[in-house]
Amino acid sequence: MEKEILKNLQSEIKNYTEEKLLPFWIQRTIDIEKGGYLTHFDEFGKDSGTDEKSLIAQTRSVFTYSQAYRHGFGGEIMKSMAEHGVKYLLEKMWDAENGGFYWMMDRAGNPTNKQKIGYGHSFAIYSLSEYTLATGDPIGLEYAEKVFDLLQKYAVDTNYGGYWEFFSEKWELMGPGAAGGDRKTLDVHMHLMEAFTTLYEASGKEIHRRKLKESIEILIQKVMHAEYGTGIPQFWANWQVAPQIKFDVVWGWDRFAEGGQKASSEDNTSYGHNSEFAWLLLHALKIGKFDTNEFKTNIEKAFYHSLNFGVDWEFGGVFVEGSHAGEVFDKEKEFWQQAEMLIGMLDAYLFTKNEKFLEAYQCIHRFVFDKMINYKTGEWWPLMTREGEPIWRHMSHSWKINYHNVRSMILSFEKLGQIIKED
Amino acid sequence: MEKEILKNLQSEIKNYTEEKLLPFWIQRTIDIEKGGYLTHFDEFGKDSGTDEKSLIAQTRSVFTYSQAYRHGFGGEIMKSMAEHGVKYLLEKMWDAENGGFYWMMDRAGNPTNKQKIGYGHSFAIYSLSEYTLATGDPIGLEYAEKVFDLLQKYAVDTNYGGYWEFFSEKWELMGPGAAGGDRKTLDVHMHLMEAFTTLYEASGKEIHRRKLKESIEILIQKVMHAEYGTGIPQFWANWQVAPQIKFDVVWGWDRFAEGGQKASSEDNTSYGHNSEFAWLLLHALKIGKFDTNEFKTNIEKAFYHSLNFGVDWEFGGVFVEGSHAGEVFDKEKEFWQQAEMLIGMLDAYLFTKNEKFLEAYQCIHRFVFDKMINYKTGEWWPLMTREGEPIWRHMSHSWKINYHNVRSMILSFEKLGQIIKED
Repeated sequence: MEKEILKNLQSEIKNYTEEKLLPFWIQRTIDIEKGGYLTHFDEFGKDSGTDEKSLIAQTRSVFTYSQAYRHGFGGEIMKSMAEHGVKYLLEKMWDAENGGFYWMMDRAGNPTNKQKIGYGHSFAIYSLSEYTLATGDPIGLEYAEKVFDLLQKYAVDTNYGGYWEFFSEKWELMGPGAAGGDRKTLDVHMHLMEAFTTLYEASGKEIHRRKLKESIEILIQKVMHAEYGTGIPQFWANWQVAPQIKFDVVWGWDRFAEGGQKASSEDNTSYGHNSEFAWLLLHALKIGKFDTNEFKTNIEKAFYHSLNFGVDWEFGGVFVEGSHAGEVFDKEKEFWQQAEMLIGMLDAYLFTKNEKFLEAYQCIHRFVFDKMINYKTGEWWPLMTREGEPIWRHMSHSWKINYHNVRSMILSFEKLGQIIKED
Repeated sequence: MEKEILKNLQSEIKNYTEEKLLPFWIQRTIDIEKGGYLTHFDEFGKDSGTDEKSLIAQTRSVFTYSQAYRHGFGGEIMKSMAEHGVKYLLEKMWDAENGGFYWMMDRAGNPTNKQKIGYGHSFAIYSLSEYTLATGDPIGLEYAEKVFDLLQKYAVDTNYGGYWEFFSEKWELMGPGAAGGDRKTLDVHMHLMEAFTTLYEASGKEIHRRKLKESIEILIQKVMHAEYGTGIPQFWANWQVAPQIKFDVVWGWDRFAEGGQKASSEDNTSYGHNSEFAWLLLHALKIGKFDTNEFKTNIEKAFYHSLNFGVDWEFGGVFVEGSHAGEVFDKEKEFWQQAEMLIGMLDAYLFTKNEKFLEAYQCIHRFVFDKMINYKTGEWWPLMTREGEPIWRHMSHSWKINYHNVRSMILSFEKLGQIIKED
């Protein structure tokens, strides 16, 4: 692809991020009175008043502002915004009695759900480590390590391997079914890899590198489809595939059929998630100084599956999900898959030098910039029709926030720069 | 078996333990000057002067005196002897910087090997928990829990399951081969089950019960021979059987051929160890209030293998080891297998009500009392010919000490009492 085109894409990202996206958050997310971040905004960017602060949204926000600061986006205010969130996490959300973070708070600062959830704790490690890397303040890493230790103690299944994910306030394993205590998920294991990568980057400790390597092995040997290299969402304790169900404690807005199962509950994979997996794996291998060649096939399978089946060459963007063999089940366009595909397609190009990945990048970039960004506010629509009409209209809530799209903008900007320089 | 016979066996145990065995230790093990226990005694019971105090011998001694005290053997002095050893463990052998216990000390109180060894830490948990159960002093359980937490953090293989066993001073996983960093063993997993049982008995915490259950599952699903139910000594990371080799850091006096492998390195099992496994499993199921029926077949296989192939009906006692299918490779008589078979055969009788197990008990009991006990000192010979002539002649060193035989005497006494009462 011509350098001029790539440079234009880069400028478009930079201008939008500095002038629209980060200002959206700078103007409205700090809760001066009660601490932490306000995270619920309607289609006009107005505080929707929802009385909750979730572990996910608070930690992801800390990550966003820390990463922006470390990568030179958003200016000095990013640092103070990150500090503000860390203070809230440690002073209000940390469970000093049992260790770990509460899952949900009301705005006044009272915990409303004290359960210990693996997904939330992976983001606690990720964001607190990034905070220390960005600011040099050691308190982030100190708590990231505490959370790491708690997961090793309470979450690991020492027989079948991998991590359990749903616990009571006191870290007792929850019961089966919707309570989640009999299942293991792709999501948690992928985000633990992501978290341990940044933890190791911040600590340099052998144990963090060792557990990072093991998390990669879990994903490759147990979680990813042996033939297609695509992600399988849910498993039983022994790593047999389990039907994908909705949990009582959700961490996203996945849509389920009546009865709480996915329509194709045992043959379902997400293109955006697979692309995210592959670029996170590449990043983990780089930070851990592991041999990338060992995982070449896995990385290529994930990237090519996303490229071959996920990209909507007609209307732009990436579809939601489909079968491992390739057939698309859900052709709508959700915000986070677009964000992860942008990073993934650039990494895939850098890894394979196949121009088709740059074309895919461009196809999704245009969908994002031409349709998904709601320029009236600066944030993204959460869910659109295949053609690009908004279906959901909120700008943020506990499961949307800004981690996917800000990270995508920062990393896409840098990776485009790398491609311009290398080619 | 007639009650009179059982009662006589019981008296023989009680008299010997109170008048000979425990006095051996009371008279010579306390190191008043340097703390901890002296643990090296020659065939005359004289201090051999070996300049070492091992984690195994110190922790096992703490267990011995604590258990004796809890079960009403040996009188009040058992309590102060246990306290004396705990003090040494916590003040001299605890590595305050990295957590965990040093592996080896000289007599003066300097660590000579600071490696962190899983086997030693399983005995730290076991003995410190027993100490709190016996004395009510909470410091034992406090450190047992610290060690448990360290093992969960540093020793678990979160991909394949189970525990790694050989670490550097700073808990970094050791390299392959004789350094032990690429192998998992029956020994450590069995002793972790033993340790977690007593830890849970002392703490009542859900996490300890959960890890106890998982340790049982590891043993049943991965470690024990699928067909014969017998113990397989060594495995690779992924639980494929590995040839049984000698490690640089040893924890016993197993004999190996030239080059450090067992002669039948992939088909070798110990009758005494299998019997110990089965009775420890029964005890774990009882303390954890798990369903014994679920493991009935496993327990019976282990007991019957020991009974059918291990017992020497001609000369008495139990052989050292042989093949999983049954053939005996080593017909000598070692101290600890006798001790564990005594407990095992009584538990096997209580479990199955098959009189043959009582006959086996009697056969081994007679070998111990007629040949293995060196009445001149009160302790047992470590290794004898099949016929009962001493081969090795020391009364104690780092890998012998008193945990197997004192525990055997106490539990055999109690189980005989239970049989007398029940029948």
